Amino acid sequence: MSTPTIEPFDAVQLISIKRDKGELSTEQIQWMIDAYTRGFIAQEQMSAMTMAIFLNGMNRREIKDMTMAMIASGERMDFSALNRPTADKHSTGGVGDKITLPLMPLVASFGVAVPQLSGRGLGHTGGTLDKLESIPGWRAHLSNEEMFNQLAELNGVICAAGSGLAPADGKLYALRDITATVEAIPLIASSIMSKKIAEGTDSLVLDVKFGSGAFLKDIERSRELARTMVALGTDAGVNTTALLTDMNIPLGLTIGNANEVRESVEVLAGGGPGDVIELTVALATEMLNMAGMHDVEVAENLRNGKAMDSWRATISAQGGDPDAALPTASESHVVLAESDGMLVHQEALPFGIAAWRLGAGRARAEDAVIHAAGIDLHAKPGDMVRKGDPLFTLHANDAARFERALEAVEGAYVIGDASSFVPRTSLIAERITAE
Amino acid sequence: MSTPTIEPFDAVQLISIKRDKGELSTEQIQWMIDAYTRGFIAQEQMSAMTMAIFLNGMNRREIKDMTMAMIASGERMDFSALNRPTADKHSTGGVGDKITLPLMPLVASFGVAVPQLSGRGLGHTGGTLDKLESIPGWRAHLSNEEMFNQLAELNGVICAAGSGLAPADGKLYALRDITATVEAIPLIASSIMSKKIAEGTDSLVLDVKFGSGAFLKDIERSRELARTMVALGTDAGVNTTALLTDMNIPLGLTIGNANEVRESVEVLAGGGPGDVIELTVALATEMLNMAGMHDVEVAENLRNGKAMDSWRATISAQGGDPDAALPTASESHVVLAESDGMLVHQEALPFGIAAWRLGAGRARAEDAVIHAAGIDLHAKPGDMVRKGDPLFTLHANDAARFERALEAVEGAYVIGDASSFVPRTSLIAERITAE
Repeated sequence: MSTPTIEPFDAVQLISIKRDKGELSTEQIQWMIDAYTRGFIAQEQMSAMTMAIFLNGMNRREIKDMTMAMIASGERMDFSALNRPTADKHSTGGVGDKITLPLMPLVASFGVAVPQLSGRGLGHTGGTLDKLESIPGWRAHLSNEEMFNQLAELNGVICAAGSGLAPADGKLYALRDITATVEAIPLIASSIMSKKIAEGTDSLVLDVKFGSGAFLKDIERSRELARTMVALGTDAGVNTTALLTDMNIPLGLTIGNANEVRESVEVLAGGGPGDVIELTVALATEMLNMAGMHDVEVAENLRNGKAMDSWRATISAQGGDPDAALPTASESHVVLAESDGMLVHQEALPFGIAAWRLGAGRARAEDAVIHAAGIDLHAKPGDMVRKGDPLFTLHANDAARFERALEAVEGAYVIGDASSFVPRTSLIAERITAE
Repeated sequence: MSTPTIEPFDAVQLISIKRDKGELSTEQIQWMIDAYTRGFIAQEQMSAMTMAIFLNGMNRREIKDMTMAMIASGERMDFSALNRPTADKHSTGGVGDKITLPLMPLVASFGVAVPQLSGRGLGHTGGTLDKLESIPGWRAHLSNEEMFNQLAELNGVICAAGSGLAPADGKLYALRDITATVEAIPLIASSIMSKKIAEGTDSLVLDVKFGSGAFLKDIERSRELARTMVALGTDAGVNTTALLTDMNIPLGLTIGNANEVRESVEVLAGGGPGDVIELTVALATEMLNMAGMHDVEVAENLRNGKAMDSWRATISAQGGDPDAALPTASESHVVLAESDGMLVHQEALPFGIAAWRLGAGRARAEDAVIHAAGIDLHAKPGDMVRKGDPLFTLHANDAARFERALEAVEGAYVIGDASSFVPRTSLIAERITAE
C-alpha cells in the first residue's frame, strides 16, 4: 500500500474563503492548482471556485501566485542556448486579426528569435493555427527539439503549445469555457501569462483589444487586464509591454482562414491594408526595441522582401508549400450597396459571427473549421460607395449557410451621409509599460 | 436513430445571466432543473450556477419556480385517501435535536396523520433516521404502500424519503455539499420545501434554528429563511408556519443517537428535560391547530400514555422492538467541575462537534454512525455545581477518540459567578405565519 498524501487544505474551505471575499494565501493557491492538476480537487469544486473568483476578484499577489502555480504545474522552456534575443506577441483576439502571420517573419528577419506558440479559435475569434493550416502540408505540431532547431536556423516558428506547458491552465480553460467564467480578469491574466512565461521568451508584447469584436468590450477593463499582465510578466523577469488596440471594426479586409493568409502574404509582399500594416509594424517595433534593436527601419523589411523570405522559409520548414494554391469556397454571395453614400458603420462582432456561421470558426473544441469559408470586405468605414457596388462577399461550401450569416450582419453596416461619419481617432489607443 | 431534443436554452447563457445579477425566467428555471436532472447540464456547470446564486441571490418568484421545478422532477405523494388531516414538521437541524421522535407519536395520538420523511445526519447535526436505527430491528425504508398503510392504521410514520421525491434536489444537495454553496437561502429554501410539498402534507411547521449550533447562526438570516419557506408552502397550498428557536445551547441533556432515543422515551413517559418538552408541545400545537384541532390539551397525551402507545405501535410496525436494550458504548469519560459555581455557558456547536468526533456523526455520506457514541450532559446553563460534580460524560467505543472530543469542547463551557449569568429569554423566539 502506498502512503496516503496528507493534504494541507480542503477544497470546500478554500472555496468558502473566496466566496466570503477573503484572500487566499500563497500556500493555498499553490496547493489548489497542484491538487486540481492531479484531480484531487474535482471539476465541480474548481468551477465553484472560478465563479467565486469571477464575482469577488483576486488581488495582484493572488493573481501572481496563481500564474506561478500554473507554470509550476508543467515544464518550462529555455531558449538561452540560442544565444540571441527572443521576443513573442500575444493578442487577446479579434475579428480579422491575422497579425501573427506577417509579424513573426518580420521580426525574425531582423535576427530576433520568435518562439510563437499559438492556439486554435473558439467562438467568433479565429486561431492562428487554423489560419496557417489553410496552407497545404503545413503542420502545427513540433517537438521541443524541432522547435528549437527551427529557431536556431530561421529565427522563427509558429506552432501549437505542447500539453506539457502549464497543463493546469489547459484544464482550467476548458472548464471556464463551459461555466461562463471566461471573462474574469484574474483568470484571463494568469491563463495567458502562465503559458507565455513558461515558454521562456525574453520579451513579450501584448495586443490587448477593446471594442465590439474584442473579448472585453470596455477599454477600462482591457486596460486593467493589460496592466495586470504587464506587471505579471515584469515580475517574472520577462520584458513586457502592451498596446491597447481598437477592435470595433474588423482588422483588414478579410475574416476567415485561407483569405486571411492571402492578406498576410500581401502585407509581406509590401502591400495590404493600412491597418494591418500599421499594427504589424507597431508590434514588431515593440518586440525589436525590447530585444535591444532601437534604430531599425522596421517597415523596410516588408518592402525589401526580407520578411517574405523569412515567411517562405519558416512555412517550408514546417512542411507547408508557400506557393501552393489556397483553398477556395465553392459558393459565394456578394452583398451590394443599396444606395450611394459613405460606409459610416461596420461593426466587428456581427461580421465575426457571420464568418463563424459560414464555417470559418468552431462551436466546440472538437469541431473542424472550413478553411475556405469567410468574408472578404470590399469597403471599410469612411469609403464612398455607389448603389450596386459590392460591399462584401460571403464564402462557404454550402449556400444554405448564407441566410444565417446575413442575419448576423443585419444592421451591422450602414451607408449614410459623409457628415455623419465619425472617423476612428487611432487604431492603437494606448501603450502600457511596467510601472 | 432517435430525434435529438431541441434544447431551448444553453447552460452557459443561464449561468451568465445569474453571474451578471440578472433574473432567470420561469421557463429558464424549469429547463435548468429538468436539464440538470437528466444530465444535460453538467455538474461543473450547475456548481458555477449555484455559486452565482449564492453570491447574487434569487427573488421570491425565482425561488418559487426553482422549488416547483424540483417537485416536477419526481413523483408527488397524495394522502387524501386517508380522509383525515395530515401534518408534518421540518427542523433545520441542531445539536441534541431529537424533537421528531416524541413529536410524531404525540401528534398522531390526536388522530392527525404525520407522514414524517426524514434524513440522515451530515456534519455535526444528527439525523432522525440515524437516531431511530439505534433501536434493534427498526427499518427506515418503506415502500409508498407500506407508508400509506401504516398511516391509515396508526396515524404516524417516520421513514426515509424515497429517491423518487424531488430527485433534482438530491443531486443538487450532494453537489452543494462539496462546493461550499450549502448556506444559500434560495437553495436551502427550495431544497427543503420541494421535498415537503412533494410529500403531500396538508400542514407543515418549520423549526428554523438560529445560534451557535444552527446551520444559520444569525437570527436575521434564519428569519429570512423562515419567511421564504412559509411563503413557498403557502403559495403551494400547504398550511405553513415556522418557529424561530434558539440553538445556542444543546437541546435536552443528550447528544448522540441511542441516548437521544432514551431521552425521547422519557419525554413520552411524561418526564424528560423541560426544553425538549416545551419545544415538542409548541410544535405539536402548531400542527394540531393547522389540522383544525384548536382546543386540545396537547401536553396531556404525554402524561396519560397515549403518545407512548403511539410510539410503541409505530416503532413495532417498522420492525423495531420498543422494549429492546439500546446500544451502550464500551468506554466512557466523565468531565468534572473544577470549581464551585454556576454553569454560566455551554455552547452548542463545540458539543455537537465533540459528539461527531466520538462517532455519533459522519464525515461523508457513505460513513456509518456509531449509535452508542455521544455525550450526556449532567448540568445545563443556570445550574449550580460543586467542585468534583460531573458536568458531562463522553461515550465511545474507542477511548482514543476522547482526546479530540475534549479539544472540541475546550472553552465551550464555563463555571462562574451566578451574577455573570445571562439566562436565555426564551427557547422559542418568534412565530412566523403567512403574510
